[in-house]
Amino acid sequence: MSLKVAGVRLAAGSAGIKPKAAPDLALVELAAGSTTAGIFTRNAFCAAPVRLAREHLQAAAPRYFLVNSGNANAGTGAPGREDALRGCRELAALGGVQPQEVLPFSTGVIGRRLPMDAICAALPGLLAGLDEESWPAAAEALMTTDTRPKYAARTLRCGGATYSLVGMTKGAGMIRPDMATMLAYIATDAAVSQTLLNAMLRQAAEGSFHRINVDGDTSTNDACMLVATGRAGNTPLQSHQDALFAPLSKALDSLCLELAQEIVRDAEGAGKFITLEVRGGRDVGECLQVAHTVAESALVKTAFAGSDPNWGRILAAVGRSALPDLSMDKVSLWFNKTRVVRAGALATEYREEQGVAALSPKEFRVVLDLARGPATTTLWTTDLSHDYVHINADYRS
Amino acid sequence: MSLKVAGVRLAAGSAGIKPKAAPDLALVELAAGSTTAGIFTRNAFCAAPVRLAREHLQAAAPRYFLVNSGNANAGTGAPGREDALRGCRELAALGGVQPQEVLPFSTGVIGRRLPMDAICAALPGLLAGLDEESWPAAAEALMTTDTRPKYAARTLRCGGATYSLVGMTKGAGMIRPDMATMLAYIATDAAVSQTLLNAMLRQAAEGSFHRINVDGDTSTNDACMLVATGRAGNTPLQSHQDALFAPLSKALDSLCLELAQEIVRDAEGAGKFITLEVRGGRDVGECLQVAHTVAESALVKTAFAGSDPNWGRILAAVGRSALPDLSMDKVSLWFNKTRVVRAGALATEYREEQGVAALSPKEFRVVLDLARGPATTTLWTTDLSHDYVHINADYRS
Repeated sequence: MSLKVAGVRLAAGSAGIKPKAAPDLALVELAAGSTTAGIFTRNAFCAAPVRLAREHLQAAAPRYFLVNSGNANAGTGAPGREDALRGCRELAALGGVQPQEVLPFSTGVIGRRLPMDAICAALPGLLAGLDEESWPAAAEALMTTDTRPKYAARTLRCGGATYSLVGMTKGAGMIRPDMATMLAYIATDAAVSQTLLNAMLRQAAEGSFHRINVDGDTSTNDACMLVATGRAGNTPLQSHQDALFAPLSKALDSLCLELAQEIVRDAEGAGKFITLEVRGGRDVGECLQVAHTVAESALVKTAFAGSDPNWGRILAAVGRSALPDLSMDKVSLWFNKTRVVRAGALATEYREEQGVAALSPKEFRVVLDLARGPATTTLWTTDLSHDYVHINADYRS
Repeated sequence: MSLKVAGVRLAAGSAGIKPKAAPDLALVELAAGSTTAGIFTRNAFCAAPVRLAREHLQAAAPRYFLVNSGNANAGTGAPGREDALRGCRELAALGGVQPQEVLPFSTGVIGRRLPMDAICAALPGLLAGLDEESWPAAAEALMTTDTRPKYAARTLRCGGATYSLVGMTKGAGMIRPDMATMLAYIATDAAVSQTLLNAMLRQAAEGSFHRINVDGDTSTNDACMLVATGRAGNTPLQSHQDALFAPLSKALDSLCLELAQEIVRDAEGAGKFITLEVRGGRDVGECLQVAHTVAESALVKTAFAGSDPNWGRILAAVGRSALPDLSMDKVSLWFNKTRVVRAGALATEYREEQGVAALSPKEFRVVLDLARGPATTTLWTTDLSHDYVHINADYRS
């Protein structure tokens, strides 16, 4: 599978933000004429680079993403904004574009100033090193608490042409002292109109990055960008009716889901990868409300860590998820395919050993049926283990 | 301080639900003519005894509370309701009252049938052992994961008369495999009308039991009962204007706060007792929204466990608490009296060592100022420690 997208070049480098000269800078160059869609954190405490990236994206079509790891440039006030702006300005001057055509991204420790002299000194080298095949190196430069770089690709054929989709991501919630941010960058060589690109990214994120919940904490720096370079030469996608729309959208959804699940699988301190399906809601919103309440319950998560089939805690979480007129007497629960609860009470055929067996592997499925409507949703989450507490309590930031 | 209330007698016993014949039954007898107010869990997954207690309280003035620990009689379906009802019937027959005059309460493991034969066999002994001074023994019989019985008392004088208030409680959220329930029983010898007693209990709970948050999980069996026996001989309190109202209400608030804080202090796995004050909200509701989001953040709680002054995590929790138009640029934060954040950024005079020193003791205060209104609220919470995970993940239920 090809790991490149025509019109996108990448480079990685180091500004000494991380120890041991580990890569902590990634530069992404987008060909002129590319369209870009972006989604940013909804957290009101958002970092300077997030605010600036949002403003720049509204003002112009981006030509560069400048990303650093190791320092989130969050909680840094007006000087932090100046730092982010300086990076955009210096890169724009070297690259021959306008400062608004550069989007800044930062991830890492909160509350410290960025070493802008070192970052700016590294820019010429990054520009000189740009290469279409450097997605893996750039993905490595995004890492903070990640144990491995995360990237994936899709290729699709449609109407005799071949299209590429490549994406990279990092992070899993806020899971380490002062560490923040999920970042994701996805590009395709298809041509897609701005309006449709925005809609496609929102839909793909809705089924992937918005469906993972490691610890309920959202970060100050979350961002997800989708670029369409148009180098595949198709007539720009304008409508849901175009023949390319369905296969491209499906490939994007699948790519985002793979990247999002990679974040959950690599979440620090996570011993389990849990697929949580909530069925039978009146609408997706109430399915999600139940799913997030269960996924964020410390009691449910610790039970999962211990492979303890503690169905009472799951039902108690459902019960407090504040659904109007919820009748617990209709609720059913399965661990994988083992029925545990029928009509709000322990299924008579269920045996505790079956529950232990279902929850002992590293990956399992929990299914809840509310039996009050047609809607269904799926969320991916982790357990709450000793390692989580160790990582988050025992290391001083 | 006197630990008795005229008109209330108590007894403790064992039905062998807990191991080693530890006390697991408490009987509370209320004199005829007493008025009783009750608050029950809002969790839709509520246990059979909770439903029955609520129905009985609406039907008649209670004469007995029958409480067992070690088994919550939750998730037990129709047979569980029959079990609870049988206890009420047999006690009523022995005590010469109607079944609706008995309120059943259970706390402990979810999903197991109660040993009703053993419980009913213990009833004659409990009735024979009733005594006004048995609050400590009854409090001990309520315990599940509690490390100590919890009770407190207040005495007040008003208009030449003396009034007593005594209360007992157990539990701290759902903090052990399958263990559920906060229970509280409070009695006074003052005479109080039903309407005013309901209002007094709601107000006292609002400032105490509803202001503690150990892990965000509410239980299937939570209940809090307030009894006024009237044995002090006063004209029944009817109005907020009566001279006795203010001092009695103040004593009740203070008693409930002491009991509620005792629950937090004794929460399993809790190493810290944290007072969380949120000021400057537009109303108490939004202060509470922020306070609960901070108190339930796994990242904030693990930082507290490590005495890590991780202000970034606290601000990130504030930022995601979904307040409309919240400007983080106005938010301030203190650890005890040390200012940490001013106007959304690290205070220039703050030193990390001050933060570590503030958060290292077992008890400390965290103050947030949203600077957007006049409202204030206070919440009491705990950290999230290795012991919490150990207790909740490592013991199989």
